[in-house]
Amino acid sequence: MGDLEELARTFRRRIIAHVEQNGGHLASNLGVVELTIALHRIFDFPEDRLVFDVSHQCYVHKLLSGRGGECFDRMRRTGGYSGYCDAQESPFDPFTAGHGGTALSSALGLAVARDLRKDGGHVVALIGDGSLSCGLTMEALQHVAGATERLIVVLNDNGHSIDRGVGAVAEHLLELAGAKNSRRPPCLFRDIHGLEYIGPVDGHDFSSLLPSLTRAKLSPKPVLVHVCTEKGRGHLRAQATPANFHGVTVAGNDGSSFQGKDTYSEVFGRCLCALAEKDPRIVAVTAAMGQGTGLQPFLEKFPDRFFDVGIAEGHALTFAAGLARGGLRPVCAIYSPFIHRAVDNFFHDICLQNLPVVLCMDRAGLSCSDGDTHHGLFDIALLAGFPNVTFAQPASLDELGPLLSAALRVPGPFAMRYPRGVAGNFVPAENPPHPLEMGRATVLRRGSDLTIWALGQRRLEQALELAKILEKQKISTEVVNARFICPIDRVQLERSGRCGLVVAMEDHVAAGGFGSLLRMELHALDVRAEFLSISWPMPVGFAEDNGTLELRHGQSTEQVLEKILRAHGHFGRSAGPTEISIP
Amino acid sequence: MGDLEELARTFRRRIIAHVEQNGGHLASNLGVVELTIALHRIFDFPEDRLVFDVSHQCYVHKLLSGRGGECFDRMRRTGGYSGYCDAQESPFDPFTAGHGGTALSSALGLAVARDLRKDGGHVVALIGDGSLSCGLTMEALQHVAGATERLIVVLNDNGHSIDRGVGAVAEHLLELAGAKNSRRPPCLFRDIHGLEYIGPVDGHDFSSLLPSLTRAKLSPKPVLVHVCTEKGRGHLRAQATPANFHGVTVAGNDGSSFQGKDTYSEVFGRCLCALAEKDPRIVAVTAAMGQGTGLQPFLEKFPDRFFDVGIAEGHALTFAAGLARGGLRPVCAIYSPFIHRAVDNFFHDICLQNLPVVLCMDRAGLSCSDGDTHHGLFDIALLAGFPNVTFAQPASLDELGPLLSAALRVPGPFAMRYPRGVAGNFVPAENPPHPLEMGRATVLRRGSDLTIWALGQRRLEQALELAKILEKQKISTEVVNARFICPIDRVQLERSGRCGLVVAMEDHVAAGGFGSLLRMELHALDVRAEFLSISWPMPVGFAEDNGTLELRHGQSTEQVLEKILRAHGHFGRSAGPTEISIP
Repeated sequence: MGDLEELARTFRRRIIAHVEQNGGHLASNLGVVELTIALHRIFDFPEDRLVFDVSHQCYVHKLLSGRGGECFDRMRRTGGYSGYCDAQESPFDPFTAGHGGTALSSALGLAVARDLRKDGGHVVALIGDGSLSCGLTMEALQHVAGATERLIVVLNDNGHSIDRGVGAVAEHLLELAGAKNSRRPPCLFRDIHGLEYIGPVDGHDFSSLLPSLTRAKLSPKPVLVHVCTEKGRGHLRAQATPANFHGVTVAGNDGSSFQGKDTYSEVFGRCLCALAEKDPRIVAVTAAMGQGTGLQPFLEKFPDRFFDVGIAEGHALTFAAGLARGGLRPVCAIYSPFIHRAVDNFFHDICLQNLPVVLCMDRAGLSCSDGDTHHGLFDIALLAGFPNVTFAQPASLDELGPLLSAALRVPGPFAMRYPRGVAGNFVPAENPPHPLEMGRATVLRRGSDLTIWALGQRRLEQALELAKILEKQKISTEVVNARFICPIDRVQLERSGRCGLVVAMEDHVAAGGFGSLLRMELHALDVRAEFLSISWPMPVGFAEDNGTLELRHGQSTEQVLEKILRAHGHFGRSAGPTEISIP
Repeated sequence: MGDLEELARTFRRRIIAHVEQNGGHLASNLGVVELTIALHRIFDFPEDRLVFDVSHQCYVHKLLSGRGGECFDRMRRTGGYSGYCDAQESPFDPFTAGHGGTALSSALGLAVARDLRKDGGHVVALIGDGSLSCGLTMEALQHVAGATERLIVVLNDNGHSIDRGVGAVAEHLLELAGAKNSRRPPCLFRDIHGLEYIGPVDGHDFSSLLPSLTRAKLSPKPVLVHVCTEKGRGHLRAQATPANFHGVTVAGNDGSSFQGKDTYSEVFGRCLCALAEKDPRIVAVTAAMGQGTGLQPFLEKFPDRFFDVGIAEGHALTFAAGLARGGLRPVCAIYSPFIHRAVDNFFHDICLQNLPVVLCMDRAGLSCSDGDTHHGLFDIALLAGFPNVTFAQPASLDELGPLLSAALRVPGPFAMRYPRGVAGNFVPAENPPHPLEMGRATVLRRGSDLTIWALGQRRLEQALELAKILEKQKISTEVVNARFICPIDRVQLERSGRCGLVVAMEDHVAAGGFGSLLRMELHALDVRAEFLSISWPMPVGFAEDNGTLELRHGQSTEQVLEKILRAHGHFGRSAGPTEISIP
């Protein structure tokens, strides 16, 4: 036991040193040091299978599964390990994960497959209490009892998702955690879902953990082991304010480190507060992303008008539809990569009903060191085809407020997307965008040989840089801040078509993206211009900064320049116009 | 009380007569006759708000809210009422609905908005027990307690979703329904979720219903009233086999009536059984759509390899990901309009992991009389951009089996879509498609002036008809069965480009659809052909048959002919090629 405690101290020191140096997830990993060691002690991975939910808490697991070397030190950077479980990285990771709530479903699938194949071994799903607010986990929980044996759900109860846990099940866990053996309350897992319930177990005490997990391993039916842990354990500040130490960014080594600068999230929060001061109908809804989306000031100013529904993106949007039908003006703040969870809610409950809900998608574009589960590269394809929707991306921090203000005046659904943090300098505001006209694009620079329609700050910065370089080559380039994804500004687009070559640039995949919509508009307008689309391929992977990912995928300014020159040359060479699409 | 019973008898007779004549939802409506009358008696709609889940059980509510006239008789047909609640139809319907599980979320939004605005009135959510298997309902249930007052959840417990109810909560409801007052089991709603629990109540007995609802109305906190009803009540055959009388189609008046003919669903079920005989790794997963997707024979033959997870599309796919990782070959059968619920699961758990899950989307294209909540017009936009996915649509019933067989040999994710029922005659199999080559399109008819790339049976039938008409006008038309959405057959497409005009036809919206992907490929290939895309606008609405909807939206063969002639003339007239897009 003393050895294990010593091991835990060593790991804890290593994780703190690593995250302080490199950034990454701190509080969640510090919370599961003893628990992960105990799991590896009792079970025989990878023959037994360990499935992590979200999996940002997998650092100790990596250390214990032969992934403690240099690649651990380079975690979340080029050539290093992923910051999450990754099935391509190790047989110890049955699944790649990054979104909350998937572990129980996928673990149940593994267990049932094992049963049908008459294989041996245990399947262990390690899920946080936050994931119990997620409908996917609740769907799986209904399916577990009777479906399999040798499935152990380890509930890592630290009272948090990213933000503090919310809702009835969070309350219920508090009650269970405080229960004395003599007088136990009804238990969701045992009395409703038919699992054996073991707990509460002190998640930092091996003398509680080891026998509880052994008992779970011997059980003839699915078990839930309720383990109470402390997020940030062993790091005083992380223990005190775990949400601040959920994801740690380190100045200098990470494209997403914004010390001293405004971020889109902060500006969003500030602007929403200012608008809400004047309009009592404005309310904010989020799904365990209050802090990350910049809503903390809103929560402090308007606690009665702030709704964090937990990891429940679907409910967040349908609930917002109800608020809108009831006469309020809900603004939903959700990360772009998590909006996948609420596509039907946006379609069925908001767009079909033409309800005035404003959906603000933070983290659209790249999240460099987190990788493919966290890039926001699909939201346009997922949402732009639905009826009644207006969809936009601000060109800069300065445009976010006016856009939000305009969005709240639209009598139907409005979606907007903006990137993580700040990508660099701001786009110069040639035409001050106040007040912002619905559906209007803005010319940032005039030109006659080709036009770039760029969406969002990073692509506009590239476009303006490209225009300068092209000018030296005697190619006159017009740069348009597209701003609206739908409707696209047809008047401006028709003018642009006179250039002969139209280039669309976006931080999104090609299929169903802004470029594909712009192309449709060009054809609807019968504009006979050559067309080039600059967008992201999939998968993208992770790296220490966005610039590295750009280079890797041909998205750097120089690489885009080459594509534009090729398209422009092509156009010059040929008899008539054509289109080429280079991913 | 006698008056109410007489009213119930009248309504029941009217509904049976109506559905026998016109088709529609029978069993669910017969189950809630007394309950709906009682709700209208106790509450004051539309000042109080009644939110239906799914809302196919709204017929009595329509009759009681001034919608009993001729438009009721024409329900689900042009000029008639919708078969669902429809906010545009009546102030008695706060929300349009069609998908399961949304009522509690949206009702909670209405209630919270009412509280913030300090308005009066009750909000009542009527949800079926099937919707408790849906994660969205469980997310909302966690949020209810403490969030509002005067919210009444009426649980219409008939032991079914469309198919028989499944899972732990279904078991729990059985236990609650059988409980004697003296010895009550722990109650999910009261003990975990903090709602007041009233029940079980006999849902066909006014002397139980009226006082229970009155008590609920007087409660100071959110209440759940557990009402036990019998699906199909008052109709002997519907009572005995409610799943068969869930949706009733009537020969002659409905494009979706297929008496005596094979449907895609049936052929799918048969082919899957044949494949599963030979390969013990094949398992089937569905989300309360076992009967509708044709899996009944599979369930009977392979009960241990069949998984109905309830109204839980997300879990169905992530569970399938686990099955695939465990070495099985899961085939998931889900309606296209419900796949919106599982977009993240397809992305995060299947495509990113490159797992061999076959997703079979029935009901892709139109579901004429159900309308916009049930058309399957978005699945390509939602899924085709994800990494590693192969995506196809068979040209005919004959092609479904070979495609399914080929899909099961692909070592990664495979999605396929096919329409409801049969749309007419089969496409002639000029080139027998056995064995089906991955990514290969097939030329069904040769031609030299223009090429139509059509996706799926209905569009191919149109294309072949168009080719015949165009031939008379001396326009030689090639018709290609596109078959694959991704990857698109580049070799064949390059050949098609020599025609000068390429037409894409699909039963899907334009944004992110097959046409937009084909256009991208054309440009990647540097094919200088004129391009025309034929696809659906949104919203589409409902009608008695698909043909009526085609006419209404310019999608009939004659209307498409006109568009093609215009594009062809355009091409002939102009100096170089261009593209026009006509929705």
